[in-house]
Order: sequence, then C-alpha cells, then structure tokens
Amino acid sequence: MGSQITIAEIAPRDGWQNVKEYIPTETKIDLICQMIDAGVTRIQAGSFVSPKAIPQMLDAREVFSAVLERYPTTNVFALVPNMRGAQDAVECGLKEISVVVSVSQSHNKANINRTVDESFQQLKEIRESFPGIILNLDVATAFGCPFEGETSLESLLRYLDKAADIGVNSFDLCDTIGVAYPVQVERFIQEVRKSFPRMPLEIHIHDTRNMGIVNTWVAIQQGITNVQTALGGLGGCPFAPGASGNTSTEDLVYMLQKNGVETGIDFEKLMKSARYMRSIVDGNYSGHQININTTQPCTA
Amino acid sequence: MGSQITIAEIAPRDGWQNVKEYIPTETKIDLICQMIDAGVTRIQAGSFVSPKAIPQMLDAREVFSAVLERYPTTNVFALVPNMRGAQDAVECGLKEISVVVSVSQSHNKANINRTVDESFQQLKEIRESFPGIILNLDVATAFGCPFEGETSLESLLRYLDKAADIGVNSFDLCDTIGVAYPVQVERFIQEVRKSFPRMPLEIHIHDTRNMGIVNTWVAIQQGITNVQTALGGLGGCPFAPGASGNTSTEDLVYMLQKNGVETGIDFEKLMKSARYMRSIVDGNYSGHQININTTQPCTA
Repeated sequence: MGSQITIAEIAPRDGWQNVKEYIPTETKIDLICQMIDAGVTRIQAGSFVSPKAIPQMLDAREVFSAVLERYPTTNVFALVPNMRGAQDAVECGLKEISVVVSVSQSHNKANINRTVDESFQQLKEIRESFPGIILNLDVATAFGCPFEGETSLESLLRYLDKAADIGVNSFDLCDTIGVAYPVQVERFIQEVRKSFPRMPLEIHIHDTRNMGIVNTWVAIQQGITNVQTALGGLGGCPFAPGASGNTSTEDLVYMLQKNGVETGIDFEKLMKSARYMRSIVDGNYSGHQININTTQPCTA
Repeated sequence: MGSQITIAEIAPRDGWQNVKEYIPTETKIDLICQMIDAGVTRIQAGSFVSPKAIPQMLDAREVFSAVLERYPTTNVFALVPNMRGAQDAVECGLKEISVVVSVSQSHNKANINRTVDESFQQLKEIRESFPGIILNLDVATAFGCPFEGETSLESLLRYLDKAADIGVNSFDLCDTIGVAYPVQVERFIQEVRKSFPRMPLEIHIHDTRNMGIVNTWVAIQQGITNVQTALGGLGGCPFAPGASGNTSTEDLVYMLQKNGVETGIDFEKLMKSARYMRSIVDGNYSGHQININTTQPCTA
C-alpha cells in the first residue's frame, strides 16, 4: 500500500461544470487558492471547452493564469475535449492536460458525439502536435456504462492498448457513473498493472451508489497512489440531482489520515474551504462530512 | 471471508425512532412484511421502551405480534432498555433481545442516564431473569465517542470481559456516531476475536462520515458474517438532520451481490420497499441508491 497518496482535486472542473449559476471568476480563483492552501498539490482547475457547451468554464483562461501565477509549483491541469482546447491550455502555460475517451462506444457517442476511433484519432493528433505536454487519458466508463452495462476487462485492455500506442502519459480509470465494486476494482487494477507495468495509473470514482470510498480504499491497497476526488463531493451527473457526485475529497482525506496514510492535506483547513464553498456556491454537495451540520454531539 | 452474510434490518427501530410523524401501526407492519418478503431473515422490528421517551414505539407489542404471527420462522428481535422492556418482549413471544450499553462512561450517561456499572448490573438482572432468551449486547461507542474521542482497544476489551462474564450471547460492535475507520475496524475485530474466539460478533456501523460501506467491507473480510443496516440509510442522530444515518441496507446488498457474496436478499425487491417507505414515511434517507431519482442515463 502506498504510504503517500496524491489527491487530485477536481471540484473546479467536474463539480463546477454542473453548477447552474455562474461562479464569478474571482470566486473561482479564491476557492482554488483555498484548496491549494489546505495542502492540495494537484488540481484540475477547469476545462477548455466551448462556452456554448459549458458556460461555467468560459473564464478558464483567467482562472488558470491567476492560479499558475500564484502557485507556480502546484500541479495545475485542465480537461480538454479537442485540439482547440489543447491549444488554449498550452497557450495558457499548462504543462499537463487530460482528454476523455469512453471505453463504451455508445457512451462516447452520447457524451461527446464521436466514435471511440474518432476520439483516438484526435488524441493522436493532440499527442503529435504537443509532444512535450503531459497527456493524461481519462478512461471513461472503465468499469461500467449506463447503456452497455459492466465493462469487460477484455474490452478495457484492448482500448488501453490503443491508447498506449498513441503515447499517453497516464491512464485515469474513471468510474464515470459510479457502478464499480471492490472485487472488480481490485481485479481491473491488477490486470491493467500486469499489461502496462510502467504506465502511471490514477483513479476517478463516483460515489453514486455509496461505493466511492470503499473502491478508492481497495484501489489504494492495490498500490494506486493517485486519486481524483472533488471537494464537498460536488459534481456527478446533471441529470440526477439527488444522487451523489464525485467521491468527496474531505471524506477521503479523513479516512486516509485516520489510517495513517499521508496526503499532505490539512483536514480542518480542507473542511473550512468546503464549507465556505457551500456557503457561496449552490451545488450538489454529496460528501457526508460536509452535511454534518451541528456541533451538538449525538448520543442516540 | 464469509460467503454468506446475514443482514439484520434495523430501520424499524433505529430508523423509525427518529421519524417525527407517527407511523400508523398497519403501515409499520406492512413495511416490515415487505422487507421480509424481499429476503430479510433477521429484523429488529422495534423497541420496548417508554412511550414517553419514544412515542413512535408505543405500538411495539401489536407490531411484533403481527409480524411473529405472519413470519414464525423469521428472526425477529427487539431492543430493550431495561427489565420492563425485557419482560414485555418475552411476553410478546420474542426469543431474542438486544440491550445497549456504551463503552464510554460519558456516552452511557448522556444516552441512558446510568453509569456503565449500573447498566451492567441491570444486564445481569435481565440475564438471570430470562435465562432462556438470546441476549445480544449492543456495544455502543465501540470505536469512538462524541465526548471521549477514539475508544481504546484496552477499554473495549475490559468492557467486553465484564459482558462475557454476565453471559450475553453476542457482541454487536456499534460505531454509534460513525467515526470508525478501516484500519481500526480490522484491528478491533482481530483483537476481539482473539480474546473471545467463541463469541458471535455482529457489527452496526453508521455512515455519518462516509465510512459505512468501507468499514463493513473490511469487517466482512475479517470474517464477520452478521451485519446490521437500515433500509434507506434511515436513522442516525436526531440532532444532525443533514448527516447520514445507518449504513443503508440496499447499498450494502448491492455491493455484496456484485462481489458475489450471498445475502439471500433480492436487491430489486428491497429497492422497491425502500422507495415505498420513502413515499409514505418522511425521514432522513441517506442511502445513496435511494437518492438516484431519475431513469435518464447519465452521460457526463
């Protein structure tokens, strides 16, 4: 088990993209700085997407520039959907980007209206155009798909083979809709490790079915040291407002700290920033600890 | 790891005692029957307490009688706070009762206004008065206390020694306020097993800090085969309305089923009964799956 876990904070992208009201640029910058001040060393501060598709991200350039200027050594990275986004990210001074491609054909179609092959072709073009950038592949529906059900290990490995050939720098195994379960997570990570022993792995697991923490714990026990989570458990699916979102950063930090696993993050400061975010940004806060809203001890 | 897990459904007690509006007797019976019809074989159908303290339970006798009559082979048991409650349970035909005593002195005082020694004295009297009944001890604050912090293994074992001497039939290790964490659960179970190798163990873990599922999974991997959970994730602390309650039965069943662990419970039927309960009983439903309120697949 890794004794030091790097948590990538993704609320500013996967969380805020689902927030209806526009969050002012200064507020975004302020919140991101608070997260970094709490000890976050890796943060997906936004995405370079069409403002028509996701208006919340229209100020990505200003946000990234401000954060990069203030924290030049923090690992700040962006999600980009295409070549245009990659260009914007590079122009903005980013050294690392993530591109999403689903394992499931039908999910890729529904999500970004391309076939998986078309997405890989584009990934290849991004790779060739920006040979110096760290290019993470967000492996969407790595464990399951809303249309095709559970992902087979065979189809995942076949997909990863193609991605490795393109020359991506890491695989981020995403449980996009929160359907993974411990035995599957264990098995998939073991097999991916076996097939790609040198490829850095990260995981991104939604808490939709209350499996976020257990799957993350199981993954960490398999040697995973990079985990993506969202402050407040923000995010998730815009079509399921009552459902849980991403695994909550503070809930994970709480567990890891208790278990003696180092994250470099100060839990109390993180909770403070989560509560502050909730006080000014109206979203789907599905973390558990952020919902403990009383100081009165429970005796029942 | 146990290949067959027995889930004790406790929503009718730990869940409903926190519901403000009175649930009509017929509704209670109907809901309990639905749970049993979904495959639940062990159920805490209520408690024999003072109607002044918990008015919701004033019809316990009628509820238990109806359920026992309809399902004579189901393991139906009650929580009792004192000798009077034990007498009521026996008169009602119950073969099994649970009594709560906290490991933490200050929690026991706050919860039932007695010292731990006074509670043990009473437990002894119940044991002697009803030698034939199965007497479970609910070990409250087994992992942590809101006033005293983390429970030391030493104080837990000392407490359990006294309880074993009294002749209880099982220890139910309760994470009353949801502060346990995986490494602790693993260690405490191993040590309790070592000290009391023949004592049947059960666990009861609240999901307050998003650790319910992971702690339960860790416990099962340690050989625990008896787990208490509440349908809908109902229950928890009446002073923390936004916080999560008990670990949700359906979320646990989902995980176990996916992992190939048998519970005898039909997940779809269970979800149906959870949704039905929510439609007629206004409570704190903190399970995740019961909050997935759309049939539209999420593609984001």
